[in-house]
Amino acid sequence: MRKAGRHFLQIPGPSAVPDRILSAIGQQTIDHRGPNFAKVGLRALEGMKSIFKTDEHVFIYPASGTGAWEAALVNTLSPGDRVLMFETGHFATLWKKLAEKLGLKAEFIEGDWRGGANPDQIEAYLADDKSHEIKAVCVVHNETSTGSVSPIAEVRKAIDSARHPALFMVDTISGLASLDYRHDEWGVDVTVSGSQKGLMLPPGLSFNAASAKAMDANKNAKLQRSYWDWADMVGPNKTGYFPYTPGTNLLYGLNEAIDMLHEEGLDNVFARHARHGAAARAAVRTWGLDVLCATQGQESGVLTAVKLPEGHSADAFRATTLEHYDISFGNGLSKVADKVFRIGHLGDFNDLMLLATLAGAEMGLKQAGVPHATGGVQEAMTHLS
Amino acid sequence: MRKAGRHFLQIPGPSAVPDRILSAIGQQTIDHRGPNFAKVGLRALEGMKSIFKTDEHVFIYPASGTGAWEAALVNTLSPGDRVLMFETGHFATLWKKLAEKLGLKAEFIEGDWRGGANPDQIEAYLADDKSHEIKAVCVVHNETSTGSVSPIAEVRKAIDSARHPALFMVDTISGLASLDYRHDEWGVDVTVSGSQKGLMLPPGLSFNAASAKAMDANKNAKLQRSYWDWADMVGPNKTGYFPYTPGTNLLYGLNEAIDMLHEEGLDNVFARHARHGAAARAAVRTWGLDVLCATQGQESGVLTAVKLPEGHSADAFRATTLEHYDISFGNGLSKVADKVFRIGHLGDFNDLMLLATLAGAEMGLKQAGVPHATGGVQEAMTHLS
Amino acid sequence: MRKAGRHFLQIPGPSAVPDRILSAIGQQTIDHRGPNFAKVGLRALEGMKSIFKTDEHVFIYPASGTGAWEAALVNTLSPGDRVLMFETGHFATLWKKLAEKLGLKAEFIEGDWRGGANPDQIEAYLADDKSHEIKAVCVVHNETSTGSVSPIAEVRKAIDSARHPALFMVDTISGLASLDYRHDEWGVDVTVSGSQKGLMLPPGLSFNAASAKAMDANKNAKLQRSYWDWADMVGPNKTGYFPYTPGTNLLYGLNEAIDMLHEEGLDNVFARHARHGAAARAAVRTWGLDVLCATQGQESGVLTAVKLPEGHSADAFRATTLEHYDISFGNGLSKVADKVFRIGHLGDFNDLMLLATLAGAEMGLKQAGVPHATGGVQEAMTHLS
Amino acid sequence: MRKAGRHFLQIPGPSAVPDRILSAIGQQTIDHRGPNFAKVGLRALEGMKSIFKTDEHVFIYPASGTGAWEAALVNTLSPGDRVLMFETGHFATLWKKLAEKLGLKAEFIEGDWRGGANPDQIEAYLADDKSHEIKAVCVVHNETSTGSVSPIAEVRKAIDSARHPALFMVDTISGLASLDYRHDEWGVDVTVSGSQKGLMLPPGLSFNAASAKAMDANKNAKLQRSYWDWADMVGPNKTGYFPYTPGTNLLYGLNEAIDMLHEEGLDNVFARHARHGAAARAAVRTWGLDVLCATQGQESGVLTAVKLPEGHSADAFRATTLEHYDISFGNGLSKVADKVFRIGHLGDFNDLMLLATLAGAEMGLKQAGVPHATGGVQEAMTHLS
Repeated sequence: MRKAGRHFLQIPGPSAVPDRILSAIGQQTIDHRGPNFAKVGLRALEGMKSIFKTDEHVFIYPASGTGAWEAALVNTLSPGDRVLMFETGHFATLWKKLAEKLGLKAEFIEGDWRGGANPDQIEAYLADDKSHEIKAVCVVHNETSTGSVSPIAEVRKAIDSARHPALFMVDTISGLASLDYRHDEWGVDVTVSGSQKGLMLPPGLSFNAASAKAMDANKNAKLQRSYWDWADMVGPNKTGYFPYTPGTNLLYGLNEAIDMLHEEGLDNVFARHARHGAAARAAVRTWGLDVLCATQGQESGVLTAVKLPEGHSADAFRATTLEHYDISFGNGLSKVADKVFRIGHLGDFNDLMLLATLAGAEMGLKQAGVPHATGGVQEAMTHLS
Repeated sequence: MRKAGRHFLQIPGPSAVPDRILSAIGQQTIDHRGPNFAKVGLRALEGMKSIFKTDEHVFIYPASGTGAWEAALVNTLSPGDRVLMFETGHFATLWKKLAEKLGLKAEFIEGDWRGGANPDQIEAYLADDKSHEIKAVCVVHNETSTGSVSPIAEVRKAIDSARHPALFMVDTISGLASLDYRHDEWGVDVTVSGSQKGLMLPPGLSFNAASAKAMDANKNAKLQRSYWDWADMVGPNKTGYFPYTPGTNLLYGLNEAIDMLHEEGLDNVFARHARHGAAARAAVRTWGLDVLCATQGQESGVLTAVKLPEGHSADAFRATTLEHYDISFGNGLSKVADKVFRIGHLGDFNDLMLLATLAGAEMGLKQAGVPHATGGVQEAMTHLS
Repeated sequence: MRKAGRHFLQIPGPSAVPDRILSAIGQQTIDHRGPNFAKVGLRALEGMKSIFKTDEHVFIYPASGTGAWEAALVNTLSPGDRVLMFETGHFATLWKKLAEKLGLKAEFIEGDWRGGANPDQIEAYLADDKSHEIKAVCVVHNETSTGSVSPIAEVRKAIDSARHPALFMVDTISGLASLDYRHDEWGVDVTVSGSQKGLMLPPGLSFNAASAKAMDANKNAKLQRSYWDWADMVGPNKTGYFPYTPGTNLLYGLNEAIDMLHEEGLDNVFARHARHGAAARAAVRTWGLDVLCATQGQESGVLTAVKLPEGHSADAFRATTLEHYDISFGNGLSKVADKVFRIGHLGDFNDLMLLATLAGAEMGLKQAGVPHATGGVQEAMTHLS
Repeated sequence: MRKAGRHFLQIPGPSAVPDRILSAIGQQTIDHRGPNFAKVGLRALEGMKSIFKTDEHVFIYPASGTGAWEAALVNTLSPGDRVLMFETGHFATLWKKLAEKLGLKAEFIEGDWRGGANPDQIEAYLADDKSHEIKAVCVVHNETSTGSVSPIAEVRKAIDSARHPALFMVDTISGLASLDYRHDEWGVDVTVSGSQKGLMLPPGLSFNAASAKAMDANKNAKLQRSYWDWADMVGPNKTGYFPYTPGTNLLYGLNEAIDMLHEEGLDNVFARHARHGAAARAAVRTWGLDVLCATQGQESGVLTAVKLPEGHSADAFRATTLEHYDISFGNGLSKVADKVFRIGHLGDFNDLMLLATLAGAEMGLKQAGVPHATGGVQEAMTHLS
């Protein structure tokens, strides 16, 4: 039986793609070596600088975010290099595994998945590395598996306080264009991002932003690379072209997305996400449930991970909400599998869509027999109005 | 400043068009005289019979619903003919004015706009017309201005009880494909409908369904007609063609819409609208406001018209909700201008969309300073789950 | 078996709709009473004035061109009025029949379907009407059935020379936005047009442009009308609204079309059509076939009707080209049924599309066994380059 | 000034994307971990097997074809491995450079860019490698820079005759779904392909097909890899999922493309391309110009590269055709830069589109002052009809 109405895609990415972007993507493809393409390419490359807030280099890959993770590492590091990472959650762990797979020595500062990276621990760790063997510090900005945000500017200060020369790499795949982010001002060397979150596109494009220091590192980095190599990109990018076939139709959508973000105003976009995160947490508290992020001030505006009471399956709850209310929530990953569900409130989203989403969760709790107090939606409405 | 997220188009039509239909409409147009068109045309004509529940004639006009109103009258009546209409609200009044403009003598059974047509009054009126001068009884099925539903089967019985030979014409522009409707079983002679309500299309197509009796009347009807003339349609329609250029791209969408309705199941569609109407009224009652339809059992599943307290402007309220929550409600029309707002809950719609809609109304009441009790959304959630 | 590649829709309308317009039409519909609609409506109404080249009134109907024919007559005339029409071909004949159906006395100056209207004959006819009983002169600008163009400015002069007060009505359904047209400068009182030809839209919108004299006539015109009544349109149109539900999504497309026409430049659009008409005729002459339009200087840039040699079926030829080359040509209508085929070269069209079209015709002639000389495409190439 | 009509994208890929695929790509994205995705993923993976004609493994990357080249090598080889490649043209050269960049010892059998790979030379080369140090033979099936086709089945026989155990890798990025291809029957170990050629999609997806022998090689291959690793794909692919975020919207389009290819019939698709190639060459010969591919029987049905006479710039010619006829031809690459232009006749293409394309070339030759005989289009018409 057909389900009526719109599906609510409330996972923490891909976020629902606005019609304007779908329409852009659905335009006829063009010759990526022809004169008209240059405008598309330059607009995308320049536009992404305005989103990363950088005057330095931006690279666009026809690839998933996983590819941009790999690109950040292979472009700047050599086999056996030590890299310091922080266990903010599942995605930090995946990035670490990727680093290991590439032949790097990845070291973890362990975390409890209930907050962002801790700058003090990073500073201490780096201070111990007198010989500066650690070549990079890698932090996840918005940990998509937990809904916690790492304080990037503070991590920068920590590295500086330790007077450590390591490169600073940040994964803001799910943070960019939803949370405040400043590649240059915050002194990030390599930023990693993807298309299907705050940028509101389907998956298929991913990004690196690279500082001058990172570009220098690229010259001596020995990890094997070809598809991801920045060095091949720089030349063609200057005139809006790419060294191999780019994802033309997604670039159409990207340019539309960048326009939309600026039409709303980046600061308004960030404020909107923050406001929705707060309203979502207000609802969760009213239900008597816990938000996975337990560190005040680090709760994400992108998503809210909700812990179910012991003995209740988050996956069963999600199956119920999908079946009865045609809403997709994100699942708990690895350590928190079946224990949490994640509410995505990112991308092209507004107050009424959030309230629909919370209503889907609240009715689902009832339907699935999860003990909770009602009134979460009401509380969120109070919060929003 | 760009508004983020999806606009909520909660007027009682046009309803938000599902992507699948927009995509169908956006396909390349074809030769309406060529062999491929016949499939499109036949599918639409046959499909609409399944929606009207008729084995008789269906006519499709490239025109708004207003055109199909006119078509119903000019195809069956002659200048000076008396027609009996029932004042269910604004649209019944417009239809009457149209009849008068065409040179008919339209007579109104007055109503208070708080319910559907009254079969007893109609029976009495017809019984008085011993000489059978009244040639048609015209009733609005779902009065879009008030949210009241006329009991069509009962009106048929009233006409029969009065042993009156008048044609029975029903406007179900906003009822079709949302409320149960049975052209043949209920003995309707001419049914009028349009594309932009339960059929989920943009405006631009309208319909007549006609009984054998209506087709007979057509032969002697003297009102001037050309564009609307059924007689010119019958022949070409047999093979899927039209006497003049049809609205090809909207027909693509219509065929998609018919498929979607049958994929859900018409009875499920009707039950969904009824359920949403009940939940909406539960919310309104919780707010302490009145539903305009005051006749139990005649409340519409298509829309709910809500009366604001004396001294409060419904239009100011609507401006507030549009500005703050990006939701469009319908305005009060003529007699109830600025006194009511109308919540559309028709078309491709589901529980979470309804709750978002009601949340928009409840927050708007607060924002606009309209006295009300909170808890309407909560009550609707209880009702739905 | 699926046919590969793009269908060539080379009938004289609907013309193939450009992607940009299809994309516009596929956008979400909006509240036609809401504040955002006004911009859409005003832009369309003002834009169409720039296309008709008028500062007077433009009316937009959610209807086929046939409806706009009817609108022109019912808005300005009264039952029994005499109207003078000129038999340029099938569509002039249809318009005459429509007039008769509406109760007008339509009189024909007969033509041989091989040229446009003859101003001298019109002048003579009017000069005979000393008592000025003829209330309107109706001429088809671009006769879609024959590919002949009537000299509208000359007809105006003819009416003036005859010092006759009749209204001057012109059908440029298939001429507008392809051929030079000047409603005000040429002194036309009512112009009729449609969406699916030079305006490059799917069918579903039609138009009237009306002079002050026509607006005056409207006040006393007694033909029955409602849907078509200009008087109801004028008020709402002032602020961009319509008296009944407009064809919102086609209006999106119309606004895009108007932009596209001005981006190319109307004079360039006209020159392009003229050039393509000349190239098409060069091909036809090379094949040794006759162009139906036999009046030098009146051949259309919109379409070219080609006579097949005696004993050869144009419809069989068209079936062949559709089957083998996936190209649709227009059929011969009534008097020239099966004797001519019509090549549409209008709308969003360019040199290479024309050459493909002519190649389809030339190969079709061979395939269908129609005697002809080869080299038509070659000749057209010479002509174009 | 806006150019009217459709652009002709006649480069040898990306090919113009059919509306049906653009429409599929423009659908709303979904949760790539949710239950509905599995259908999309399985359909794509199974469908691609039918296109590669393999019962073994197919891998789909959200990446350009360049990525799939890299994937083929890093999944099966180890640093320092010798690989034998054949210089069919620019793309064979790029693949070799890529291999070198990855740390492989790539050896070239030189070619003159005027034909496909030579099986005899390959056999002789392998026969010399008594110690079987060569780990892979890499051949380009359809060399996009020259329009020559390598005889893949013959190369297989050559390897077998030399009794050499090297893996056999084939790049059919621009050949697949246009030219006959049989991964299993021809004993290919790794096939590489991409989305934007015969598959009619925009760029952004690429593919590997892998034999059991290649899967075995994967276990011991030491080249660094993560994004491209088959080993991570196999598990999730079984149920239709991917180890990282897939290119969901392009997968929608891929499924549509696979359906379209089967609706036409793969053999019909191949015959169509062959027929168009022959017609294009007939035109080129009539112009008195040379086709770059000089090896009879190895001319491509995908594209035709045309040599301009000494002293004439192919790039100037291409600029002329783009400017005057809105058609994009492919440029000459590296060794043949500015000396040849390439006519793409692949993807969703038909006779009339080919004739338009050839007309654009012929008129462009005249416009650009390139000496040539006229009549090429005429000759192609003769050939096609």
